[in-house]
Amino acid sequence: MKDMLRFSRRGDALVGQEMFKVLDKAKTLESQGKIIIHLELGQPRFEPPLGLINKTKESLSCKEVGYTSSYGILSLRKKLAARLSKKNLDIKVENIIISTTNLLISQCLHLLTNPGDRVAVFSPTFPSYIASSNFLELDLIQIPLSFDKKFQLSIKDIDKALLLRPKVIIVNSANNPTGAVYKDSVLNYLKEKCREKGVWIVSDETYSSILYVKKFFSLLSAQYKNEIVISSFSKIYSIPGFRLGYAVASKPIIDKLALSNSSLISCNPMFTQKGVESVLDNDSNYIFEINKKLNSLIAEVQKLLLASESLNKFFIQPDSGYYMFLNVSKSKLKSFDFCNMMLEQYSVACTPGISFGIDFDNYIRISICGTREDVLTGIKRLISYFNNL
Amino acid sequence: MKDMLRFSRRGDALVGQEMFKVLDKAKTLESQGKIIIHLELGQPRFEPPLGLINKTKESLSCKEVGYTSSYGILSLRKKLAARLSKKNLDIKVENIIISTTNLLISQCLHLLTNPGDRVAVFSPTFPSYIASSNFLELDLIQIPLSFDKKFQLSIKDIDKALLLRPKVIIVNSANNPTGAVYKDSVLNYLKEKCREKGVWIVSDETYSSILYVKKFFSLLSAQYKNEIVISSFSKIYSIPGFRLGYAVASKPIIDKLALSNSSLISCNPMFTQKGVESVLDNDSNYIFEINKKLNSLIAEVQKLLLASESLNKFFIQPDSGYYMFLNVSKSKLKSFDFCNMMLEQYSVACTPGISFGIDFDNYIRISICGTREDVLTGIKRLISYFNNL
Repeated sequence: MKDMLRFSRRGDALVGQEMFKVLDKAKTLESQGKIIIHLELGQPRFEPPLGLINKTKESLSCKEVGYTSSYGILSLRKKLAARLSKKNLDIKVENIIISTTNLLISQCLHLLTNPGDRVAVFSPTFPSYIASSNFLELDLIQIPLSFDKKFQLSIKDIDKALLLRPKVIIVNSANNPTGAVYKDSVLNYLKEKCREKGVWIVSDETYSSILYVKKFFSLLSAQYKNEIVISSFSKIYSIPGFRLGYAVASKPIIDKLALSNSSLISCNPMFTQKGVESVLDNDSNYIFEINKKLNSLIAEVQKLLLASESLNKFFIQPDSGYYMFLNVSKSKLKSFDFCNMMLEQYSVACTPGISFGIDFDNYIRISICGTREDVLTGIKRLISYFNNL
Repeated sequence: MKDMLRFSRRGDALVGQEMFKVLDKAKTLESQGKIIIHLELGQPRFEPPLGLINKTKESLSCKEVGYTSSYGILSLRKKLAARLSKKNLDIKVENIIISTTNLLISQCLHLLTNPGDRVAVFSPTFPSYIASSNFLELDLIQIPLSFDKKFQLSIKDIDKALLLRPKVIIVNSANNPTGAVYKDSVLNYLKEKCREKGVWIVSDETYSSILYVKKFFSLLSAQYKNEIVISSFSKIYSIPGFRLGYAVASKPIIDKLALSNSSLISCNPMFTQKGVESVLDNDSNYIFEINKKLNSLIAEVQKLLLASESLNKFFIQPDSGYYMFLNVSKSKLKSFDFCNMMLEQYSVACTPGISFGIDFDNYIRISICGTREDVLTGIKRLISYFNNL
């Protein structure tokens, strides 16, 4: 057989997300009988809205198991348009597509870039942007934000990104992993400058409904110039396994994303979309309760960290989301080694900072969306490690 | 704003599948109150296995709505490995990935090719191969098979494809749209020659469980050299909306496909996979019944066509699947115009042959997976058109 039988260059380059190695190791330990505290996953342990589950089951009972539109089902798009239009915008059905959020990120980058094109992110950054950029053979530039500025985006950071003349800037406020919600004035500057210079913005607003601060500024704009806003139903309704989210953009973009869906996946299931649709108009209590629980838990976590002399200067209070980004440089370990050590010696799984950007190998991400007991036990073990250094 | 704000080259090239235009038009007519006979969709109207639906609902009731493995859930992979191993092969869990079949086609091509690489298909061919190849900027070569040879693949066709030195050959037996099941000897020749010359084979065997002939030859091989076999649960269980299928290949390929999943979609839902898993060991009655119904319907359709002097020499008896590929050259219309005419004047929706390859603009595909009444009515109207010519 000829040795021509190899992966392609882009096949070889596909290395996936290193962060899953910690999860794999945790699972191996669990299969050996160890009890592991999971602080590495962004997997909500909350019960999803009961109505959503019931409606999904009802749709299955009605055998709604056929093909649907590549745009997502019309009734869900209509309701979402009405919901988003409440924020003083005129969002139309034609500006919305329903699909898997992760896939939408890749699809947007696919539409807007050719291999080798430059894409800028502000790091630490969601690993999917890095994975998508690798998949699409892009030149990904990471502009690092600083711990000292609470990982806030500044006008200087935006100027730095724009100087590199990217085709696309991906911005993620509320941020995973730092929890930072960026300022109105800064995001407005980003929007203006990108319009002026003809740079696309992909704004991932997945965590915008889980807030510890009062204000969230969306890049959603009914003018739909160069902005694509992406979000997810995974976190807001605790249903990551539904694999559903949406993009809001100008009609030509949405039409291209639908063509991309028709080429790659045909469509998404109808029953999952019906489930989400059924709670969309009546979710404020659910979201309020989730926020209350997370607010109370994050307050307890912060109390523990503030009381620890060894860690109280090494974390940032998050504005939003499930995560905290901790500086673990005191350990003198690289982030992967730190996470391996925590897993082996303390049975606590965390995500290495290096997964979120090349400049963050002395950080870890911890997730607080598990059960209260697990989260607090995990944090106490982390503190105990640092106290014993 | 600068005019740099455009789609990329690959974004511009994304044109999707023309065949959906007929469906769109049919929907518009229906919204105006017209009753349309649908012979254009590969959407089974059979009830899915009740156990499958119930297990999916049960999994939802158990709130199994979290992230799962990028490989698919282990229990389903195990059962599938055991099932496939029954055919005298030793298929291991590590050789199986569960995902959306359409996406798997693109993902395989992505792994194995770089932009501009040559991929060969035998046409008429499933439009998704064409769409995926466009999406990935490949040089797709269509080797046309002939009506006179009942759209059977021959050794000569294989030699013709190999002379063009493709990186990958996609083969689809049982075939959509012709229904042809290719001969053992020919597929064995393809396998041997491709191994010898170092060409990858992607074998799509989605329709292999719906047979009107006794024998189906699979390219599944426990040696896993250069073969990737892809299939789907959509047709076998009448659940296209579940978007689930699988690939069987060597471990390095499966590992890369899982990395690709982790980059693009993270994972598939657990509840849909649990549903499929629940019937996998106990589906022979269901598949027998589906085959019986389709066998009886296809016999009626053929009787009608054979009795029609204007059409009896213009169709091929399918060996498998939902489809028949009809030569409509007598109409002197191009396939799109023919389908538009049938839709407007006879309220029957069919799929234009051009969607299945550049050489088939005087063909249409009709699907017989709708209700018996619809299918027979549609066929009668087609015959009546040709009789009135």
